[in-house]
Amino acid sequence: MSDAVSAGGAFLATAEAAAEAAGAVIRPLFRSALLVEAKGDASPVTEADRAAERAIRALLAERHPDHGVIGEEYGDHNPDADWVWVLDPIDGTRAFVTGRPLFGTLIALLHRGTPVLGLIDQPSTGERWTGLAGRPTQFRSALGGTPRCRPCDRLAEAELSCTSPDMFDACTAPRFAAVKQAARRTTWGGDCYAYGLLALGLVDVVVDATMKPWDWAALVPVIEGAGGRCTDWAGQPLRLEGDGTVLAVGDAALLPEATRLLAG
Amino acid sequence: MSDAVSAGGAFLATAEAAAEAAGAVIRPLFRSALLVEAKGDASPVTEADRAAERAIRALLAERHPDHGVIGEEYGDHNPDADWVWVLDPIDGTRAFVTGRPLFGTLIALLHRGTPVLGLIDQPSTGERWTGLAGRPTQFRSALGGTPRCRPCDRLAEAELSCTSPDMFDACTAPRFAAVKQAARRTTWGGDCYAYGLLALGLVDVVVDATMKPWDWAALVPVIEGAGGRCTDWAGQPLRLEGDGTVLAVGDAALLPEATRLLAG
Repeated sequence: MSDAVSAGGAFLATAEAAAEAAGAVIRPLFRSALLVEAKGDASPVTEADRAAERAIRALLAERHPDHGVIGEEYGDHNPDADWVWVLDPIDGTRAFVTGRPLFGTLIALLHRGTPVLGLIDQPSTGERWTGLAGRPTQFRSALGGTPRCRPCDRLAEAELSCTSPDMFDACTAPRFAAVKQAARRTTWGGDCYAYGLLALGLVDVVVDATMKPWDWAALVPVIEGAGGRCTDWAGQPLRLEGDGTVLAVGDAALLPEATRLLAG
Repeated sequence: MSDAVSAGGAFLATAEAAAEAAGAVIRPLFRSALLVEAKGDASPVTEADRAAERAIRALLAERHPDHGVIGEEYGDHNPDADWVWVLDPIDGTRAFVTGRPLFGTLIALLHRGTPVLGLIDQPSTGERWTGLAGRPTQFRSALGGTPRCRPCDRLAEAELSCTSPDMFDACTAPRFAAVKQAARRTTWGGDCYAYGLLALGLVDVVVDATMKPWDWAALVPVIEGAGGRCTDWAGQPLRLEGDGTVLAVGDAALLPEATRLLAG
């Protein structure tokens, strides 16, 4: 892993360049007349998503032609490579469509299936979280914030965040409800941004379901580099072929209580 | 009213100065170590709320000693005056506490009970919506956006926003659920910011309950100056002694369908 980590560091410049390329595509569309006129229709966002993913893929193909790529819009390319990039140009489509600056561009690099580099980029506000295995998470923002999770060892004291009550089904809803009931308070909305806030010590638990690899891969190094943990609902490492459940905690001491409730 | 409107224009500079004074108090606390350490405890926010309201009240007392003031933290002062300011220094406490830049400072001026001036200020991003009766709403933001509601005459095409599913009781929950079911999609979170997005033509309907006068007074001139409507769930003008329900639509053509469903 230490070789992987040092190589991962060399790939950080690529990840940052990829975020810049995606931001240049996405930024002009945010709150644009095109989106206002589309009235929530997904197609302009899908087009932006695709154009941004193409821009990132072109950059990766040029710099690292032997790497694999997994992306929401263009599927898998060489997914069995040692190094695989996992991309979601616009995570938080609903936030993007309604003009909330809480969506994000997610860029991750996996080494043999393990995320070793993750970047959460907010192209409108210019905020960026950068996580790299073996190094403390870095954060740049004009709005302030320090990339360090805070201590919180009981759900009764925990600030819970969840993207939407509508993301759960008959199986997952009661298990989420048990965590919500145990938590001190719940705030809704945020997608990847909520995980970024957990990495700033402002949120203690995030619970989501139906997450694809491109939704969570970049979050893992950001959260773990800030002192937190990011697992599935059973507390196990997230895997590409997992069940889509994601649990993030700022303090690992919350894991036993949260995973017990999420087990149903 | 036309006299009131022209006088309201003269008071705009006061409202802007009040927002600056509140922002200077609030901005340093956003995402600060104090809030991280407080772990969601309300007291630092309450202190910031109070300090900001004191700053605004001092400015109003100096510039307009004959005006009334209604604020969340310090109650009523001369509420029967012709001109009454209505204040909420930090609307969206949960957004503020968790580091989301979607809270806002709300400053309204009522003339004999009718909001004629409203200001939504986001002190961290520097965004500001300014509504003044008889004048188109103005908006300043580095993130883009045009202050004009968009046409949308059927809920089936409407983007719905609501602060939290937890704000409804046994009486209001089924009525809100009927609108949610009729709407095209729902996005959660946002408080005053969601109304600002409606005024940018990015959201079509906002439905909230348990709203106090300082939660809605500033929204009315912003939304109506952008071409929308802001009423109670019955479609009637919002009043200080109202029932706390608020319905905002970007297109007045949505009012009959929305108020019918909200009547239960």
